[in-house]
Amino acid sequence: MNKAQLFDQIKAKSSYLCVGLDTDIHKIPEHLKKADDPLFEFNKQIIDATIDYAVAYKPNIAFYEAHGLKGWESLMKTIEYIPNEAFIIADAKRGDIGNTSRMYARAFFEEMNCDAVTVAPYMGEDSVKPFLDFPDKWVILLALTSNAGGKDFQNLQLQSGGEVYEKVLEKSQEWGSDDQMMYVVGATKAQALTNIRKIVPNHFLLVPGVGAQGGSLSEVSEYGMNRECGLLVNSSRGIIYADSTEDFARVAGQEASNIQQEMYNYLEKYC
Amino acid sequence: MNKAQLFDQIKAKSSYLCVGLDTDIHKIPEHLKKADDPLFEFNKQIIDATIDYAVAYKPNIAFYEAHGLKGWESLMKTIEYIPNEAFIIADAKRGDIGNTSRMYARAFFEEMNCDAVTVAPYMGEDSVKPFLDFPDKWVILLALTSNAGGKDFQNLQLQSGGEVYEKVLEKSQEWGSDDQMMYVVGATKAQALTNIRKIVPNHFLLVPGVGAQGGSLSEVSEYGMNRECGLLVNSSRGIIYADSTEDFARVAGQEASNIQQEMYNYLEKYC
Repeated sequence: MNKAQLFDQIKAKSSYLCVGLDTDIHKIPEHLKKADDPLFEFNKQIIDATIDYAVAYKPNIAFYEAHGLKGWESLMKTIEYIPNEAFIIADAKRGDIGNTSRMYARAFFEEMNCDAVTVAPYMGEDSVKPFLDFPDKWVILLALTSNAGGKDFQNLQLQSGGEVYEKVLEKSQEWGSDDQMMYVVGATKAQALTNIRKIVPNHFLLVPGVGAQGGSLSEVSEYGMNRECGLLVNSSRGIIYADSTEDFARVAGQEASNIQQEMYNYLEKYC
Repeated sequence: MNKAQLFDQIKAKSSYLCVGLDTDIHKIPEHLKKADDPLFEFNKQIIDATIDYAVAYKPNIAFYEAHGLKGWESLMKTIEYIPNEAFIIADAKRGDIGNTSRMYARAFFEEMNCDAVTVAPYMGEDSVKPFLDFPDKWVILLALTSNAGGKDFQNLQLQSGGEVYEKVLEKSQEWGSDDQMMYVVGATKAQALTNIRKIVPNHFLLVPGVGAQGGSLSEVSEYGMNRECGLLVNSSRGIIYADSTEDFARVAGQEASNIQQEMYNYLEKYC
């Protein structure tokens, strides 16, 4: 999916919501655990209930990998099930030397037909570029993450000025344009968004951390939005585990709808 | 496998060779491509031919992931096939927020029973620590990688002194001891090893880049070895693709044997 198509979806649904499919066998409703493929059955119902309010889905690959072959089957069925209109992000945090990154790109873009994959920047240019060889596919590069440990290295002050994450934003713009590159910026760092928008005014940002991790949708939207929206805001636990009974999908849909309504207002106001 | 057991293996085989299983369907001998599971069949013969000379095997996860479910099957069969005496490294470059890293740890340590997994440091402490909750399992943290892009961020000068990779070495020692943490240091950076040994005198280093990537085993051994060897030197392409005929396994074994003999001398000299 290209940038114009993504923005079209955002306008059509008045939403920049991404639903995170961090599907944990220990957290899904009891009655689903007897299903043939509980992770897929859960995801299927979550997708059906939220598709009118979400423009993107983000399966968290670790949650499937942890179950070995069976988990990968659930993941692949989930990705196939997601309607074409939605942008699919493999949240995989991959990145390795060139020939290896190319293999990861094949896995997520060819084997699984995802639109985007999250990539860690530590190994630099040749670890990222192979992902950019696939037309209309995206790299979502980690810049400033929402977790406590993010500060350990991302916020180190450089002798040349600025912090490590700012250098990641600057340097990586040489590798690919805002038509193929997005950045992960944690919602718990909303104040940093003003600064980030100075460095990458036109890029989409994937913002996790709203909800369970404590970030504010209001602040993220105020400081992060640009003329083409430029935001995908992810919520995982706050939507998919909003209810743990047989009613879970309806409640998830309701949560997604509530967020979408809030987003509608921010789109009117800031975009 | 714990550190003492690893050192015992190194002494028993007079070797610190790690064989990288970067098994590419386009590079394996023609006659194997008709096999039921060509990747596994190739790996099986490589393992049989090299096990007397190698203390570790390092499947490069991307090469299996690129084939979807079938690739994961080949990977799991390969890991099961590797004899218990060998140290198994999942070269996966994972790392995410805490609950997600825990899932990756389960995948590689419980589902697959690997001894170690390579982890990217960008997300800091809580992305690394969940891997350290598994007794006798190891994190191999990226420090100074062998690829050209490594310099983009790893060699940035910090205002507080030193470079980013040095800070990674320093900071991460607070998270786990040299009984559970190793570091990736590219063989193309042999001169940096003297400096690295000042920061982490007792840790094992996983050194890729010898052979195809141009690193020197002699220099790595001279500057990197400590009293418990402290090195695992990886060779992938130089061994597994040394020959592309039906004779490939014998030639791979010969290459591994040659490296082991060189290692025997360095162990006598420096350890």
